[in-house]
Amino acid sequence: MFMTRSEYDRGVNTFSPEGRLFQVEYAIEAIKLGTTAIGIQTSKGVILAVEKRVSSPLLEASSIEKIMEVDSHLAVALSGMVADARTLVDYGRVAAQNHRFTYDEPLKVESLTQSTCDLALRFGESADGEEAVMSRPFGVALLIAGVDEKGPQLFHTDPSGTFMAYTAKAIGSGSEGAQNELEKEYHRSMTLEEAETLALTVLKSVMEEKLNKANVQVASVTASENFKIYSEDKLQAIIDRL
Amino acid sequence: MFMTRSEYDRGVNTFSPEGRLFQVEYAIEAIKLGTTAIGIQTSKGVILAVEKRVSSPLLEASSIEKIMEVDSHLAVALSGMVADARTLVDYGRVAAQNHRFTYDEPLKVESLTQSTCDLALRFGESADGEEAVMSRPFGVALLIAGVDEKGPQLFHTDPSGTFMAYTAKAIGSGSEGAQNELEKEYHRSMTLEEAETLALTVLKSVMEEKLNKANVQVASVTASENFKIYSEDKLQAIIDRL
Amino acid sequence: MFMTRSEYDRGVNTFSPEGRLFQVEYAIEAIKLGTTAIGIQTSKGVILAVEKRVSSPLLEASSIEKIMEVDSHLAVALSGMVADARTLVDYGRVAAQNHRFTYDEPLKVESLTQSTCDLALRFGESADGEEAVMSRPFGVALLIAGVDEKGPQLFHTDPSGTFMAYTAKAIGSGSEGAQNELEKEYHRSMTLEEAETLALTVLKSVMEEKLNKANVQVASVTASENFKIYSEDKLQAIIDRL
Amino acid sequence: MFMTRSEYDRGVNTFSPEGRLFQVEYAIEAIKLGTTAIGIQTSKGVILAVEKRVSSPLLEASSIEKIMEVDSHLAVALSGMVADARTLVDYGRVAAQNHRFTYDEPLKVESLTQSTCDLALRFGESADGEEAVMSRPFGVALLIAGVDEKGPQLFHTDPSGTFMAYTAKAIGSGSEGAQNELEKEYHRSMTLEEAETLALTVLKSVMEEKLNKANVQVASVTASENFKIYSEDKLQAIIDRL
Amino acid sequence: MFMTRSEYDRGVNTFSPEGRLFQVEYAIEAIKLGTTAIGIQTSKGVILAVEKRVSSPLLEASSIEKIMEVDSHLAVALSGMVADARTLVDYGRVAAQNHRFTYDEPLKVESLTQSTCDLALRFGESADGEEAVMSRPFGVALLIAGVDEKGPQLFHTDPSGTFMAYTAKAIGSGSEGAQNELEKEYHRSMTLEEAETLALTVLKSVMEEKLNKANVQVASVTASENFKIYSEDKLQAIIDRL
Amino acid sequence: MFMTRSEYDRGVNTFSPEGRLFQVEYAIEAIKLGTTAIGIQTSKGVILAVEKRVSSPLLEASSIEKIMEVDSHLAVALSGMVADARTLVDYGRVAAQNHRFTYDEPLKVESLTQSTCDLALRFGESADGEEAVMSRPFGVALLIAGVDEKGPQLFHTDPSGTFMAYTAKAIGSGSEGAQNELEKEYHRSMTLEEAETLALTVLKSVMEEKLNKANVQVASVTASENFKIYSEDKLQAIIDRL
Amino acid sequence: MFMTRSEYDRGVNTFSPEGRLFQVEYAIEAIKLGTTAIGIQTSKGVILAVEKRVSSPLLEASSIEKIMEVDSHLAVALSGMVADARTLVDYGRVAAQNHRFTYDEPLKVESLTQSTCDLALRFGESADGEEAVMSRPFGVALLIAGVDEKGPQLFHTDPSGTFMAYTAKAIGSGSEGAQNELEKEYHRSMTLEEAETLALTVLKSVMEEKLNKANVQVASVTASENFKIYSEDKLQAIIDRL
Repeated sequence: MFMTRSEYDRGVNTFSPEGRLFQVEYAIEAIKLGTTAIGIQTSKGVILAVEKRVSSPLLEASSIEKIMEVDSHLAVALSGMVADARTLVDYGRVAAQNHRFTYDEPLKVESLTQSTCDLALRFGESADGEEAVMSRPFGVALLIAGVDEKGPQLFHTDPSGTFMAYTAKAIGSGSEGAQNELEKEYHRSMTLEEAETLALTVLKSVMEEKLNKANVQVASVTASENFKIYSEDKLQAIIDRL
Repeated sequence: MFMTRSEYDRGVNTFSPEGRLFQVEYAIEAIKLGTTAIGIQTSKGVILAVEKRVSSPLLEASSIEKIMEVDSHLAVALSGMVADARTLVDYGRVAAQNHRFTYDEPLKVESLTQSTCDLALRFGESADGEEAVMSRPFGVALLIAGVDEKGPQLFHTDPSGTFMAYTAKAIGSGSEGAQNELEKEYHRSMTLEEAETLALTVLKSVMEEKLNKANVQVASVTASENFKIYSEDKLQAIIDRL
Repeated sequence: MFMTRSEYDRGVNTFSPEGRLFQVEYAIEAIKLGTTAIGIQTSKGVILAVEKRVSSPLLEASSIEKIMEVDSHLAVALSGMVADARTLVDYGRVAAQNHRFTYDEPLKVESLTQSTCDLALRFGESADGEEAVMSRPFGVALLIAGVDEKGPQLFHTDPSGTFMAYTAKAIGSGSEGAQNELEKEYHRSMTLEEAETLALTVLKSVMEEKLNKANVQVASVTASENFKIYSEDKLQAIIDRL
Repeated sequence: MFMTRSEYDRGVNTFSPEGRLFQVEYAIEAIKLGTTAIGIQTSKGVILAVEKRVSSPLLEASSIEKIMEVDSHLAVALSGMVADARTLVDYGRVAAQNHRFTYDEPLKVESLTQSTCDLALRFGESADGEEAVMSRPFGVALLIAGVDEKGPQLFHTDPSGTFMAYTAKAIGSGSEGAQNELEKEYHRSMTLEEAETLALTVLKSVMEEKLNKANVQVASVTASENFKIYSEDKLQAIIDRL
Repeated sequence: MFMTRSEYDRGVNTFSPEGRLFQVEYAIEAIKLGTTAIGIQTSKGVILAVEKRVSSPLLEASSIEKIMEVDSHLAVALSGMVADARTLVDYGRVAAQNHRFTYDEPLKVESLTQSTCDLALRFGESADGEEAVMSRPFGVALLIAGVDEKGPQLFHTDPSGTFMAYTAKAIGSGSEGAQNELEKEYHRSMTLEEAETLALTVLKSVMEEKLNKANVQVASVTASENFKIYSEDKLQAIIDRL
Repeated sequence: MFMTRSEYDRGVNTFSPEGRLFQVEYAIEAIKLGTTAIGIQTSKGVILAVEKRVSSPLLEASSIEKIMEVDSHLAVALSGMVADARTLVDYGRVAAQNHRFTYDEPLKVESLTQSTCDLALRFGESADGEEAVMSRPFGVALLIAGVDEKGPQLFHTDPSGTFMAYTAKAIGSGSEGAQNELEKEYHRSMTLEEAETLALTVLKSVMEEKLNKANVQVASVTASENFKIYSEDKLQAIIDRL
Repeated sequence: MFMTRSEYDRGVNTFSPEGRLFQVEYAIEAIKLGTTAIGIQTSKGVILAVEKRVSSPLLEASSIEKIMEVDSHLAVALSGMVADARTLVDYGRVAAQNHRFTYDEPLKVESLTQSTCDLALRFGESADGEEAVMSRPFGVALLIAGVDEKGPQLFHTDPSGTFMAYTAKAIGSGSEGAQNELEKEYHRSMTLEEAETLALTVLKSVMEEKLNKANVQVASVTASENFKIYSEDKLQAIIDRL
């Protein structure tokens, strides 16, 4: 069985007899090696929460950046290869600024998501410089959070260039357990504060290390306050609520 | 037997001794992994109906987009890789706008179909940037619905760049059973309303989940009202008719 | 024996030790999977007749296009990959219009044939965008019919870029039996009407389905009336004559 | 033995340990599959004679073109792949016309031969569009006949880009027997008429089919009459002489 | 186990079924063959210390350059392939000068780190000249030390394009033991002088040769004195303190 | 042993573990299949002598060109692939003319040799059109003879791009025996006439066929008479002297 | 063991699992097949001495060039592939002239060394014409000798692009024994004359042939006399001193 598979999975962009693209599926596996990230949408805004793996006490946890701002009303939480995510986020930042400059309005959350996915799809062996931005699929999944005229929204993208909207979504190594818990606890009338608590409760349940203000990061994107990374004090306050 | 085949199917665009192009055939297999989509043509217009796979209750089903507008009188329903379809649809949208701009008339349904298929054929290892839009075949089948001076029309395209007109056609994982049922029930004098009922009846019979207003999408392209996605209320009304 | 062959046949344009180009030979095999097409030349004009495979009663047989006009005095019938044929025909149409524009006269039948074959030869791994129109041989055979100052003519082309003139020629899955029958029945003094009857008699004898006005297509290219696709009524009249 | 060879012969332009280029040698094999062609030089001009394989009585033998004019004083007879020969001949025609235009004199026979061979050498994997005209060697041998200030001349070229002058030369599947016979019968004081007879006598002895005016072609290049294809009447007259 | 791995690790930029990029992991192995380098951050500045392998008494140890200046306030210590590091450092120098020229201010430490990592990521098989600076991952790890408005900072980068800030970090063949020792001895209130002593104490414990002023190099980046390579006298003074 | 070698010798420009470039070594083997050529330098000029293989009595030996003029004071004798040599010689002719045009003086013998070797080195897989003139090494060795201000000189080049000056040198299939004989008989005070005799004596001893005025070619490059191919009469005179 | 290695060493620029670049290591092996070269630095200048392999008494030893001038104050001695060295030296000559032209001062020895190494690193499979100067590593090591404001200096470079300064260094097939002897005999206060004697003493001890004025070459780069190749008389004088 495995030998058969291996004949197709080395071509970066080749179908197997069953119609599968193995390199894309393996890139999705790369994300299962990543840290867990969680997004929860409420009527006031979206909460993003991520785990940080602090492998040495001398590591400055603040330099681990797994939540990134794209525009004042747009942010992503990531799981997988950080360097790949930076390429996607940089692309999104330019798209957001171009949109503001051209149309004098903020880029819509779904538009950002779609153009990020279009980029994610443009990998492969093509010799056309404009097309081939990567010689392999991007090894990263994103939770894209934002607020626009449709209100707060949360999208999930993966290396296949597929995107879908969720009210609450977990990605990364702990995503299976986390998603089950979200499905049990989430309800549409949640307040932003309840969402903060839920996000950290779920993260805590899937993290190997004990959760503390240094090894998680939380941010919100709201209509009233735009993108905001939580301070350590604010983080401690939520942890105290758990 | 299988070993012999495997010697030819890894080159993305290479003939086997029997004159077959395996990568294209495997891309056609990719569609058999996709959700079912149905198109039915009547004298008043074309009905498109698709299944949505809602893998989590937290997934916003409305963000799954399997029916897309190309122009006010042109739409596609798809089965297979959504990201691949977006590339084809974007190309079609530009072709439709260019045609309006150059000739001041709507693009014909067959013309859209043909230029989409021409693009689908232009994959491979060529180093010519203008030719090679993909390094593999597109893993998607389309039902192209539209209205022009010849009246309502329905075309089917697949990864080989082949297209044909149908009065009723099913694609995707449930296509075999669905097509049999369509052949039994379809008649040329059907009303648009009868077509709506038939489309959902057939979808219902091939879907694993119980059909409801959240996990299907229906649209029509008619001479009188152009492209129109059905609201959830309208969907519920049809489901109640079944 | 087979193992030896397989070492050479994957390079798209590589000689085997016996001096054979396997990818071209496999493309010729692709045509043996195709529908049968027949061409018959008379002193008044050329008859083209093709079989259509109508796999579903809901398929609009009229959308299957296996006879195509190149210019008012030039047409092709094809067997093999329709999408590949479209590329060749589009190229021929441009060549014919360019010739009219530059020299103010219709393109000769042999000139069209030769430039189509030149294009068919330009496939392969070359990185030169102008040269490499396909990364594999074209998987299609053409019967090119036309009328010029030399009178009505019929040419046959195959994926190797070879062309020859015939008075009567069959291609596709039923070509062997059909060509034998043509050799028995054809004579140079045939009228156009006798050629119509012979073409359909031969097609009928090699088709698996029962021949009717929906699953065959007939066209003529004559000095007096140029290219003309036969109407269903006219088809029925010939069928009635058989 | 064979396994060792096969490790080197798939690279289109790679030396084997013994210093051989197998793809070029295989292309030379391709010519041994071709029809026989003969060239004979006399003091008045050069005779070219080729065999035609007429596989069907419906094939128009006149459309098989194995002797081609390059300029009024230059012609080639070929054995091997006709489509490859057309590329070489088209290149030679342009070279001949350029020479006339630039220097106001006919191109010399050896100059035509050399520039044809230079083109034959420019195949391979180079990504330089101007260099790589073919991704494999040309599968054709040419007999180049012409008349210039040095008198009538006959050159032979093969896929390795090598050329040599001969007084009489046979190529193609029957070349071995034919060359032996030429060596026995040829003498430098032969008249053009004797050369015509010798050419067809030799062809007759190596052809499988019975030689007749339809399955051979003869042409001459002379100082007095330039290039001239023989009519069927003239052919019959020579056949009657045999 | 090993055979399975080997099927994926030769493509320079291909995922294995477990979602790993082996060529990047092997480049990280390359660093484990390198000399040890240590960075320690204090409130006054950052200390960098590296081991030099002096393989011959005739080798001028001063020509071994494992600490390099990027700008007056920015420096790197490296472990791994020196030539690869030069490419990254040259790129960083241009980035720093461009920033000064465009914005009239020194480049931030994190900005330098990020743009170095972006370059490190741009390797692979892409045919786009602007993208592909290397056909393999860079085989070098860097300790980037600098001072900006945020004070002294120390970053670590590896061939995967990942970067993180550390208060103290060891890289190279002795990194495991060295990092353990740093974790035991480092405290945030250390003076620059204590950091010098700690760096050489740790280096001494992991070096195979006896540490002396010729086979180590020490530098500091401080707010008051910018980048400064220590003289042999100053080195001897620290060694005397151990 | 052989299996190990074969793993490295197919890449056109790849080192084996022992640091060897097999494709270049195989190209050098190609020369051992070639005809023998000899060069002898005297104080008055250089003698070049080559063997011709006349495989058929109908072959015009005069069309075999193994000694070529580069400029009036520069010539080459070759062994190996004639078509490859033409590319090198054409390049040298242009270099010689450019030098005359730019500096108004003849190109030096060593300069011609060096620029020919530079070209010989520029083969390989690089996609840079200006660099890659061949996709494999040139399969030819040259004896470059010339006269400049340093007097008569003789250089030898091989496919590795290496060149050296010799007073007398043999290349090709008979080179080993011929070089031994040259070492025995050559002395620096030889006259041009003695060199002619020695060259043909040595050729005669290594040729399989009996040496005669048709199957050898001799030329001289002298200060007084520049490049001169010997007439058949002059050849016969030398043969009579042997 | 060997099989494992062979899986990684054919890609010209691919890491093995242990983080090694085999093609570069094999290029370093190529140098061990080369002739021995020695460099010795004194306070007055640098001595370069090389062995010449004179394989035939008819070979003009003076045409073997293993010491080359780069600029009046810069020279290299080489071991390995002479043709590869010419590319590096030509590049260095242009760099030196550009520096003089732009800054009106001689290029520094270390600058020449570094830019030569940067070029050596730019090989590989990249399709970017400006980057990929070679499709494999350069198979040559250089001893770069020069004089600038820092006084006489000697650098060693190898195919990995690494460079280091030495007071005395041997490269090539005899380098191991030669370096040991240099380490024993060299002292910093050596005169230029003592360095000449030491260089030839060491060469003599590692050469297979008996050392004489024809099979070695010596040069010096000094502040007072710049680059100077020693005459045969001067060589004989040193040999007489041994």
